[in-house]
Amino acid sequence: MKIVGVDFGGTTFTVGLVDVESGEILKEEQHETKAWEGFENITRRVAKVINSLKEDARAVGIGSPGSILNGVVKFSPNLPDWRDVPLADRIKDLTDLPTFVENDANAFVLGEKWFGAGKGYDHIVALTLGTGVGGGVITHGILLKGYLGIGAELGHVIVEPNGPKCGCGNYGCLEAIASATAIVRMAKEMRDDFPNSEIFKSDKISAKTIMDAARNGDKLGIIIRDKMVDALGRAIAGFAHIFNPQIVIIGGGVSKAGDVILKPLRKKVEGYLMPSFVGTFEVVISPLLDKAGVLGAASVALENIRR
Amino acid sequence: MKIVGVDFGGTTFTVGLVDVESGEILKEEQHETKAWEGFENITRRVAKVINSLKEDARAVGIGSPGSILNGVVKFSPNLPDWRDVPLADRIKDLTDLPTFVENDANAFVLGEKWFGAGKGYDHIVALTLGTGVGGGVITHGILLKGYLGIGAELGHVIVEPNGPKCGCGNYGCLEAIASATAIVRMAKEMRDDFPNSEIFKSDKISAKTIMDAARNGDKLGIIIRDKMVDALGRAIAGFAHIFNPQIVIIGGGVSKAGDVILKPLRKKVEGYLMPSFVGTFEVVISPLLDKAGVLGAASVALENIRR
Repeated sequence: MKIVGVDFGGTTFTVGLVDVESGEILKEEQHETKAWEGFENITRRVAKVINSLKEDARAVGIGSPGSILNGVVKFSPNLPDWRDVPLADRIKDLTDLPTFVENDANAFVLGEKWFGAGKGYDHIVALTLGTGVGGGVITHGILLKGYLGIGAELGHVIVEPNGPKCGCGNYGCLEAIASATAIVRMAKEMRDDFPNSEIFKSDKISAKTIMDAARNGDKLGIIIRDKMVDALGRAIAGFAHIFNPQIVIIGGGVSKAGDVILKPLRKKVEGYLMPSFVGTFEVVISPLLDKAGVLGAASVALENIRR
Repeated sequence: MKIVGVDFGGTTFTVGLVDVESGEILKEEQHETKAWEGFENITRRVAKVINSLKEDARAVGIGSPGSILNGVVKFSPNLPDWRDVPLADRIKDLTDLPTFVENDANAFVLGEKWFGAGKGYDHIVALTLGTGVGGGVITHGILLKGYLGIGAELGHVIVEPNGPKCGCGNYGCLEAIASATAIVRMAKEMRDDFPNSEIFKSDKISAKTIMDAARNGDKLGIIIRDKMVDALGRAIAGFAHIFNPQIVIIGGGVSKAGDVILKPLRKKVEGYLMPSFVGTFEVVISPLLDKAGVLGAASVALENIRR
C-alpha cells in the first residue's frame, strides 16, 4: 500500500510517496511554503505536488505545526492567516484522496510507532527538540490529544521554577532550556565569560556548533549540554512516572548530536526515576532521521485507515 | 444495582454497600486491618464483612494502596508481606462475587467519574493529598495505567529541582512539598523562626492545624500554604498541558482545608498555564468527602462491569 505524506512547515513543505510495507519513500519533493501567499494558494500548490506524485496511493497524511482538531487547523504560529482553516477537507477536494491532518509532534510519535523505534509498542513518549520542544504521546495504544485536542504539550511543562522565559509567556518550561533556540540563547548569554570557547569560532552559533563543542571537550559547550540534559532528564523521568512507557524517543534537529546528549541523558533520567521505574523503558534517538517528517505524516493517514 | 466497595488501607479497611443509581452508601463497616496478621487472615476477615453486607450486590470493587496489576497486588508499602498476592481472586473465592482491584488513587479518580465531580467527563486529572500525593488520570475515557500498570504517579513529578527529599529517594517531588507529611515537616523545620505561630499551640501539628492557621492569617501558616500551593499550581498546569483535561479534582485529607487552598491554587494554576489552556478546565475539591474511599472502590467494579 502507498500513502502520501506531507511534512508541512512555515518555511518549506515536503511531499513524499511512502511504501507502507517497506517504509521506503519512493519519491519526494520539497518546496517553499511562501507563507504570505495565504491558505488558498499554498494548499493549491501542495495539492498539485501530491497529485504529481500520488500514483495509486490510498490516502494523504499531513503533519503541520499548530493546533489541529478533526482536520481543521485552529491556528499555527508560523502561518498567521491560518485560523480555523479546513486543511484536510481542502486537500481531499483537490486530490480526491482521504486526507488526515495532525500536529507535527503527534505525527512524529505516530511515525515512530508505524516505522521507527516504537514499532509494536502501545506506550510511547516522544519529544522533538528543534526550534521549540514538541511532544507526542501514545498511551494504551491511543494518541493522546486531550479534550480539545491541544494536549501533549510536553515542551511546556515547567522544569525550572523561575527559569528562563519561554515563548509561551511562562518561565522555566522545558522548551526554554532544551530547544535549539534555548541553547543558542544560553551560548550568547555566556559569551562574555567564555570568549575563547570554540562555539564562537564559527560564523553562526547553532545547536550543532554547541554540541560539537561539547563533544570536543569545550567547557562552555559542556556547561550548556549539561544544563539541557539535566532539564530533559528531569522532564523525561516525570513523563515516565506519568505514562509508564515502553520507550521514550527523542527527535528533531538537536537530537542529531547523538551520543553527546544520549549517554549523559540516560544517566540523568535514571537518577531522577523512582526505583520501581528503573529499567522499565529505553531512551533512544529517533532512527528515522530526515525521513521522520514524511513518514510521520504518512502515519497520520495510516493510523486512521488501519485502526 | 448494588456493588460492594472496599476501601482498603494499612491501618483500617471500610466495606460499604453502594446503591449505584443513587450513589448512596446503604451500609458501611470499618475495621482494623492488623497488617501483621498477613494476607490469608486479613482477606478472610475482609471477605467475612463483605458477605455480611453484600445482599444482592453484583460485584466487589477494592481500592488498595500499592502497585496493582490485573487484580494482583505486586507490593504495598504498608503491608510488608503483600508481594504478588492475588487479592481479586482470593476475595472472589471467598465471596462468590466478581472482584476487581485498583490502586487507591486510581479508585479515587474512578469514583469521581462515576459519582463525583467528573461525571460525564472523559478527561480527568485527580490528585489525593494525604500522607503521600496520589494521582489518577482518565484520558480519552481510559484509566491511565501504563505499560506495567505503575503509571499515573503524579506525586513523583519533580516540581522543585534540588528541593526537599522525598520518600521515593528523589528530591523536590510534588509529594515532598504538597503532602500532609511534607507540610508538617515544613512547620517543624521553621519552628525556631516562628516560635509564636499558632501552629505550635495545639498538641499535635497536623495539616489541619497548619491550614487553620493560614486561614486565620498566621504568618507561618501562610508561608507554608503558599509554598504548597505554588508547587501544586505548577504541577497542575503541567498536567493540564499534558492531558488537556476537562477537570482537575483534588481530594485527600489536606483538601478538606477548602478555600484556603483552592482560591490561591486556582490563581496559581492560571498563572502557570499557556494562554490557550486558560479557561479550558476547572480545578475543584472532591465533593465526595468521606465517601470517596468506598465510592471509589465500588467504581473500580463498575468500570469493569459497565464498560
